[in-house]
Amino acid sequence: MTERTPRGLLALLAFVPVALLLHQLTPERHTLIFAASVFAILPLAAFIGRATEELAEHLGGGIGGLLNATFGNAAELIIGILALREGLTDLVKASLTGSIIGNVLLVFGAAALVGGLRHPVQRFNRTAAGLGTTMLLLSTIGLIVPAVFHWLSRGIPNAPELELDTEIAVVLFATYCLSLVFTLRTHRGLYGRPRAAADSQQPPFNYWRPVGMLVAATVGVTVVSEMLVGTVTQTARELGMSELFIGVVVVALVGNAAEHYSAVVLAANNQMDAAIAIAVGSSTQIALFVAPALVFISYVVGPRPMNLLFTVFELVAIALSLLSIAFISHDGETHWMEGVQLLAVYAILCLGFYYLPAI
Amino acid sequence: MTERTPRGLLALLAFVPVALLLHQLTPERHTLIFAASVFAILPLAAFIGRATEELAEHLGGGIGGLLNATFGNAAELIIGILALREGLTDLVKASLTGSIIGNVLLVFGAAALVGGLRHPVQRFNRTAAGLGTTMLLLSTIGLIVPAVFHWLSRGIPNAPELELDTEIAVVLFATYCLSLVFTLRTHRGLYGRPRAAADSQQPPFNYWRPVGMLVAATVGVTVVSEMLVGTVTQTARELGMSELFIGVVVVALVGNAAEHYSAVVLAANNQMDAAIAIAVGSSTQIALFVAPALVFISYVVGPRPMNLLFTVFELVAIALSLLSIAFISHDGETHWMEGVQLLAVYAILCLGFYYLPAI
Amino acid sequence: MTERTPRGLLALLAFVPVALLLHQLTPERHTLIFAASVFAILPLAAFIGRATEELAEHLGGGIGGLLNATFGNAAELIIGILALREGLTDLVKASLTGSIIGNVLLVFGAAALVGGLRHPVQRFNRTAAGLGTTMLLLSTIGLIVPAVFHWLSRGIPNAPELELDTEIAVVLFATYCLSLVFTLRTHRGLYGRPRAAADSQQPPFNYWRPVGMLVAATVGVTVVSEMLVGTVTQTARELGMSELFIGVVVVALVGNAAEHYSAVVLAANNQMDAAIAIAVGSSTQIALFVAPALVFISYVVGPRPMNLLFTVFELVAIALSLLSIAFISHDGETHWMEGVQLLAVYAILCLGFYYLPAI
Repeated sequence: MTERTPRGLLALLAFVPVALLLHQLTPERHTLIFAASVFAILPLAAFIGRATEELAEHLGGGIGGLLNATFGNAAELIIGILALREGLTDLVKASLTGSIIGNVLLVFGAAALVGGLRHPVQRFNRTAAGLGTTMLLLSTIGLIVPAVFHWLSRGIPNAPELELDTEIAVVLFATYCLSLVFTLRTHRGLYGRPRAAADSQQPPFNYWRPVGMLVAATVGVTVVSEMLVGTVTQTARELGMSELFIGVVVVALVGNAAEHYSAVVLAANNQMDAAIAIAVGSSTQIALFVAPALVFISYVVGPRPMNLLFTVFELVAIALSLLSIAFISHDGETHWMEGVQLLAVYAILCLGFYYLPAI
Repeated sequence: MTERTPRGLLALLAFVPVALLLHQLTPERHTLIFAASVFAILPLAAFIGRATEELAEHLGGGIGGLLNATFGNAAELIIGILALREGLTDLVKASLTGSIIGNVLLVFGAAALVGGLRHPVQRFNRTAAGLGTTMLLLSTIGLIVPAVFHWLSRGIPNAPELELDTEIAVVLFATYCLSLVFTLRTHRGLYGRPRAAADSQQPPFNYWRPVGMLVAATVGVTVVSEMLVGTVTQTARELGMSELFIGVVVVALVGNAAEHYSAVVLAANNQMDAAIAIAVGSSTQIALFVAPALVFISYVVGPRPMNLLFTVFELVAIALSLLSIAFISHDGETHWMEGVQLLAVYAILCLGFYYLPAI
Repeated sequence: MTERTPRGLLALLAFVPVALLLHQLTPERHTLIFAASVFAILPLAAFIGRATEELAEHLGGGIGGLLNATFGNAAELIIGILALREGLTDLVKASLTGSIIGNVLLVFGAAALVGGLRHPVQRFNRTAAGLGTTMLLLSTIGLIVPAVFHWLSRGIPNAPELELDTEIAVVLFATYCLSLVFTLRTHRGLYGRPRAAADSQQPPFNYWRPVGMLVAATVGVTVVSEMLVGTVTQTARELGMSELFIGVVVVALVGNAAEHYSAVVLAANNQMDAAIAIAVGSSTQIALFVAPALVFISYVVGPRPMNLLFTVFELVAIALSLLSIAFISHDGETHWMEGVQLLAVYAILCLGFYYLPAI
């Protein structure tokens, strides 16, 4: 967030007690509790993002970047862990898919469109963007291989799918860690830090404020996510939608609202480097950090470990999103029509997820 | 067409009465009528193109561009509507496929080869070419999603395929309209108009000539297309080829002959911007304007609405053509070997369509 | 090889008699013979490469280039022919696959990583690299079309698969020949010859030395390959690995060891143009020269002709490798993280090949 005072965020905080009250008083009104939880998570996730960023700025360089890279998608991670505990691995995968395609298509599409309406052509560093799209390609490969493997070894008893998927998760995770070395250490010059200057003249920094905010918001997200995860199955049934659609579109939007807002504001100010870093970087983080982390965590918390076998349509959606961002970003410039194109791809994929029969 | 006097075109016009006579006198000689119709459409389609272009140049800017963008593929649209009326939706899809891959591979491949034999390296504007290939990606996504959907929901009664496909067609169509705003209004500077200068010193323009030509040629195309569509099934049987192959290769070539000629002439004159605009632009128009329009029209004229479910090999061919043009065009330059590569891809795909068993 | 004295190569030559002795004395110890043959081929293949290069440099221009383009992968070709004679077409395809993905991912990945550790950013000519990746795309298309064709015509008796595949091989082969005209004649300026200068001041050249080395090494490779091919099936069984894995990973590595070494040394010296030319050029040569040549040769030597139908996972691996190198190379620069990314893709694919059940 570029702004110091996040307008409307404090107002949304009111949904936290609302959700808790609904959950206590009318536990059978699933859709209502789900909706309240969705709105309640928005400000909490934003506060986690703000606190992380403040700490990152003051810790600076390596440690700060590391903090950002791990806590940046804390909400997704927490929702994922809670859903794993309930055994809702399909919901976890759906929300991972939704986060990946949402950041790339919806967040960056909206940023390119809004930015493009003010500036005819917007430029950004191709090396940094190229690294991001290649990371996405890598994670897509890490999802395609398990799917092909599963398809080829169907009917074969005891196919070693989980071993394969876990080892692929290790490769993805290790590559992500190396990419942090690249972005935070050896090539950090490529990655502009547009917001650091504004804060440099401030009075001595009080660490307690952001740390306190981080802890409080994390606890809040955990509590509210529990209600969200607990009501999602019933809500899907009541709304006549598939759990897949709810996961891909609704749950995924919740965790990315903050990124969405920041990227659009940055694009409007013609800071496309920062906008694409948020959009693609967030997708990459989900695919190469959150997803493998959830695979590892699933060994501990879930009723059974989670593999990397996404549904066919999820995989197709991720691959097509990857191709779209690669086509759009390879020349290092965007204009409003490219924003429209990304949003059109998102619309087509959402239509597919909407109509897809729940199996 | 760059030339004022299209050599040979008037001679080909003789095939119009020949086709009509054959149809009257020997209605059972299907292959002969088909062949005569093919040759008869060539000059008629060229005249539609010429008349459209003349009008577009004099109307200028927005309206002229709009005219070009809608009438530019009038022959394909007319053939499509007539085939829909006969319920030949597979033929419609085959000729759409053939137009898309033919423009991208055969037309642009021949242009890059011929141009490259005269000029070692030819350059063109990457932003304009990038917009075109991304539009092709968008339309490919609009065809992949229905195919995956169909495959996933096979065996499920009353899967809402037609709703999904129609809504996707709406998204594609809307994106195409927005792209016209981009090319004709906000970013028209990107799209050079190489032929406008030559005409600017002419005497007062007589609108009746091109309008008359447009009406006459459209009527002619309609009449001849009717014979073409009416004989295609029998012709395929007599020649021992599948209807798919005839649609993809022969029928598609017919409608694109004019584009083919123009693009090669332009490339030979080192006007690669215009050549790629014709080739990729024509593919895009087919995919995002003609195809959705035919879906909408099919609700009115056909025995049953047309969906967007192309055959697997058509889809593969379109996706591979898209990748080929993306690989070739992303660096903003071509040489003769890239023309050879595109033509080689076209040859491989045609071999596939030729040998594919009619199912 | 940049170095005049290939350290260690002479030592490895000792494995030639070792392999022969083992084969004579203990013919039932398959894995041992296989391992000795693997090590014995390494220096022999390197000597073929050296002799070819020396001759090519002194014959110069067209003929030299032609020699390099045909003898450059002599070891792969010889192994392939011997395996064809045994009817091991699956092994042939596996080693072709392994060579293609190994050159692109492992060889170029290692080169980019090692080079990138010394130089922050390394640049190379995008036109030359683009030609190479498009050639790879072409060959991938030449493998996808037979696979789709096979899948679509399953259950149909007498589907003309072999005709289709042979004709596709002709198209690929012809395109490769035309690409030689491009690289050796019309656009040879694009392809730097970084090593020619060093040799230009040498005394009169004795052709007998390299010709003799070429003949001797080729005979050696043939003899050792015979043992390698003869023991591969048993070795796979004894090691508990699939023949596919042995073919893709082990056999393919053998033939590319020389390329591997050269590319890494060149990258460390910041000669990325030469490094990418070796890596991508070698893949292209395998896909467009060795593979079609083996199809043609299979009509003569094999118990039955070889088609171009690769397994699904081989095809997926080739397509993903192609996308990876396209993403990495399109901007004309590399850094160490891109090397890591290519190696990560290679690791994921190898995991897939390892766990894939032998069918």
